[in-house]
Amino acid sequence: MAVGLLPPHDLLPIAGLRLAVAEGGVRYAGRRDLTLMTLAEGSEVVGVFTRNRFSAAPVVVAQRHLSAGTPVRALIINTGNANAGTGAAGLQAAEDSCRTVAAALGCAPESILPFSTGVIGEPVDLARKISATLPTLTARLDENHWEIAAAAIMTTDTIPKACSRQIDLDGQRVTITGMAKGSGMIRPDMATMLAYIGTDAALQGAALQQCLRDAMAQSFNRITVDGDTSTNDACILMATGQVLAQAVTQVDDPRYVPLCAAITEVAQFLAQAIVRDGEGASKFMPIHIAGGRSQEECLQVAYRMAHSPLIKTAFFASDPNWGRLLAAIGSAGVDDLEVNQVQVWLGDVRIVRDGARDPDYTEAAGQAVMAEEEIPVRVDLGRGTATATIWTCDLSYDYVRINADYRS
Amino acid sequence: MAVGLLPPHDLLPIAGLRLAVAEGGVRYAGRRDLTLMTLAEGSEVVGVFTRNRFSAAPVVVAQRHLSAGTPVRALIINTGNANAGTGAAGLQAAEDSCRTVAAALGCAPESILPFSTGVIGEPVDLARKISATLPTLTARLDENHWEIAAAAIMTTDTIPKACSRQIDLDGQRVTITGMAKGSGMIRPDMATMLAYIGTDAALQGAALQQCLRDAMAQSFNRITVDGDTSTNDACILMATGQVLAQAVTQVDDPRYVPLCAAITEVAQFLAQAIVRDGEGASKFMPIHIAGGRSQEECLQVAYRMAHSPLIKTAFFASDPNWGRLLAAIGSAGVDDLEVNQVQVWLGDVRIVRDGARDPDYTEAAGQAVMAEEEIPVRVDLGRGTATATIWTCDLSYDYVRINADYRS
Repeated sequence: MAVGLLPPHDLLPIAGLRLAVAEGGVRYAGRRDLTLMTLAEGSEVVGVFTRNRFSAAPVVVAQRHLSAGTPVRALIINTGNANAGTGAAGLQAAEDSCRTVAAALGCAPESILPFSTGVIGEPVDLARKISATLPTLTARLDENHWEIAAAAIMTTDTIPKACSRQIDLDGQRVTITGMAKGSGMIRPDMATMLAYIGTDAALQGAALQQCLRDAMAQSFNRITVDGDTSTNDACILMATGQVLAQAVTQVDDPRYVPLCAAITEVAQFLAQAIVRDGEGASKFMPIHIAGGRSQEECLQVAYRMAHSPLIKTAFFASDPNWGRLLAAIGSAGVDDLEVNQVQVWLGDVRIVRDGARDPDYTEAAGQAVMAEEEIPVRVDLGRGTATATIWTCDLSYDYVRINADYRS
Repeated sequence: MAVGLLPPHDLLPIAGLRLAVAEGGVRYAGRRDLTLMTLAEGSEVVGVFTRNRFSAAPVVVAQRHLSAGTPVRALIINTGNANAGTGAAGLQAAEDSCRTVAAALGCAPESILPFSTGVIGEPVDLARKISATLPTLTARLDENHWEIAAAAIMTTDTIPKACSRQIDLDGQRVTITGMAKGSGMIRPDMATMLAYIGTDAALQGAALQQCLRDAMAQSFNRITVDGDTSTNDACILMATGQVLAQAVTQVDDPRYVPLCAAITEVAQFLAQAIVRDGEGASKFMPIHIAGGRSQEECLQVAYRMAHSPLIKTAFFASDPNWGRLLAAIGSAGVDDLEVNQVQVWLGDVRIVRDGARDPDYTEAAGQAVMAEEEIPVRVDLGRGTATATIWTCDLSYDYVRINADYRS
C-alpha cells in the first residue's frame, strides 16, 4: 500500500507524443510488458542514467544512441527482464530491439532508445518478442495512453505513478505529463527507476539539458528507499515543440524559470510517489536538514538517517526512538559537529534541544506525530546556513518479504 | 538463534582479574544488569571507543579517565540504559558512578572506567543503584565469573559471547579470555558493542596499544550487521602482568607477534560471534574481496555489499540472486572498475565469470550453497593485489521485529 498516493487520473496528452502498450510475453504470459512511445519530428530528448558500473545493456545502448545526435523517434520499454549482467548477448539484444523498432518506423536504429526493468542477469530473447508484438504496438499508438503506460512499466510497484501540470507561457497553454516506475533499489543518483517526462513546449538545446539537471537535483536525486543503486535507471525528458512558436533554448530566457519549475514539480511528484510506494513502505518521511556549513554535509546527515535500518524500523513501529536519530546524526561523518548545538523535531514536536532530550518533550507528543503516515523530520545542525531535503520511507516486514520472495 | 554459535564453555580465569555480577534494577527488576571487574596492581589497560559525535556519557568519562594515566583498578558496566543523549546529567551520573566504586575500593575515581549499554536518551539514576549494589558486587568478585559476566552484559543478544586461548611464551603458559556483547547497531569503527579482553601476560606500553589496534583491524573493525554506529562502543584490552617476568613493551620484541596473534584470535572470535548473533541473523557471510588496487577499495566494495538490504534479504531467502551482488559491486564507488574483469564465487561455486553469469553456473549449484548457514562470498576485482575480508549477516523478518519492538 503506497503512503498517501492515489492512482493517476486526469493525465493530459502531450501533443506529438504517442504511447502504446501490449503483451509481449517477456517473462510472463498475459502481462502488458512492452511499452512504445513515439515522438513527432522536431522533438528533442535528453536523459540521465545510472552511474552503476554494471550498467545494463539498454542503458549502454540508450546513452550511445543519445550521444550520436540523431533525433530520437521512439522509446521501447520492457518489464520482466532488466537485460543487465547479460554480457555481449545482452548488448546484442538491446541493439537488435532498436533495429526492429527502427525498421517498423522507418528510421535509423540510433533514433530508438531501449529501456528494460526486471530481474537482473537472466538471458532474454527481447528482439524476437518485440518484433512479434510491434504490429500491435504501432496500431495502438495514441496520445491518451499515459495511464495504461504508467501501469505497464511497473515491476514491484503497487500503484502507477504519473501526473500532469499546465502553465501559461507567451499566452499559450503548455502541458507537462510524466510517469515513473520504481519502488526498491532506490537511492540518489538513480535507482531501479524509469521516469519519462514529456512536454509539448519547444524547450531545446542547453536549456533542455539544464532543466533536466535542475529537476533531478530536486527530485530523483533526493530520494532513497534502501540505499541500493540499480543497473538500469534512467530519467528521460522529451520536448515535442508543438507549443511555443519561439523555442526556449537558453537558461536566461525569462520563460525558462517558470517552465523548468513546472517540469521540476512533475519530477518531484514522481520521485515522492516512488518513495511513497517504496517496497513495504508504511510511512513517508521528508527529512529536512538545516544549519549546515554546506549542502553536502546536510545531505550526508540526511542520507545517514534515511539509510539507518534502526531508524527505519523505529518509524515502522511508530516509535519515537529519538536516541537512534541522534546516533545517526552523530555518526554521519561531520567530524567537528558540536552536539549541543543540535535540535531535532518530529513534525512540530521538538524532541531534542541543544543535543539532549527537550525537557518539554513528552512521549505522548512524540507518539502522536509517529502515528501519522507522513512524518516530517527536521534537524538543525546549528553551524551554518545550508539546507537540504530528501524523502524516504520506513523499513517493514513487507520490505523483507517482497525482496526475499522476488524471484521465487 | 545465533548462526553456528554455542554458549561459551571452558572459559579460563585470568590471574589478577576478578568479576562479579548482580541485580541492580537499572531498568528492570530481577535482571543481572551490573558487572564489576577489578584488576590487580600492575595491570595495564588500553581502550578504543566509538567515533560517534553523540558519544555516551560513560564513553566520555572512560576516555578521560584512561588518558589521565592513573592505573585502572576497576570497570563498572551496566545494561538497561546507555546513558547516551542524556546531557550534563548523564555525565554527572557516570562520574558519580566512578566515585561510588572508587570509594568502595579505596582508589581514585580516575581509576574506574564506566560502561553503559541499553536504551538511548532515557535519564538514569545510575550512581544510586550502583551504590546500593556494590556490597553484593564486591563480595562476589571471583576470577572464575567470566561466563556469568558474559551473560550479564547482553542486551538484545541471544547468546553470551566469550572464549579463551592459551599460548606458551618463554616456557610459561599465557592465557587470554575475552567477552563481548552486541548484535544490532553494528558496523566498523565500533558499534553497540562492548568487548573486554584480558590476559595475564605482562604486555605493556606501546606494545599493548599497538596490539589492540592490530587486533581491532582484523576483528571488530571488520564486521557489520546493519551499518549503524552506536554511541557507546568500547573495546578494552587488559593485561594483568601476572605471567612473563620480563614484560613485552615493544612491538619488535619477538614475543609480540605470537602474543598479539593469540589476542587477535580472541577478538576475531568475539567479533564474528557478534555477527553470528546479529539481530535476526539466520546466515553468516564472510565477504572476501581480492584483486583490488588498495585495501581501502576492497573494503569499500565489501561494505557496499554487506550493507545492501537487497543482498541481505536475498541471503535470508537463500536466493542466489547474483544480479544484486553485481549491482552492489558496480555502485561501490570504484569509478574505473572494469566490469568484465570481475569474478564472483558463492562458496566454491563461481557465479560470475568476466562480469557476466558464468556459462557453467547452474541455479541448482547456487542454491546448494545458499542453503547453508555459512555462505562465503568471494569477489575478484581483477585490478590489483590488495585484499580484505569482512563478516556480515542477512536481513530477516526478525531484524525488523526486534528493532520495531525494542522499546515497547
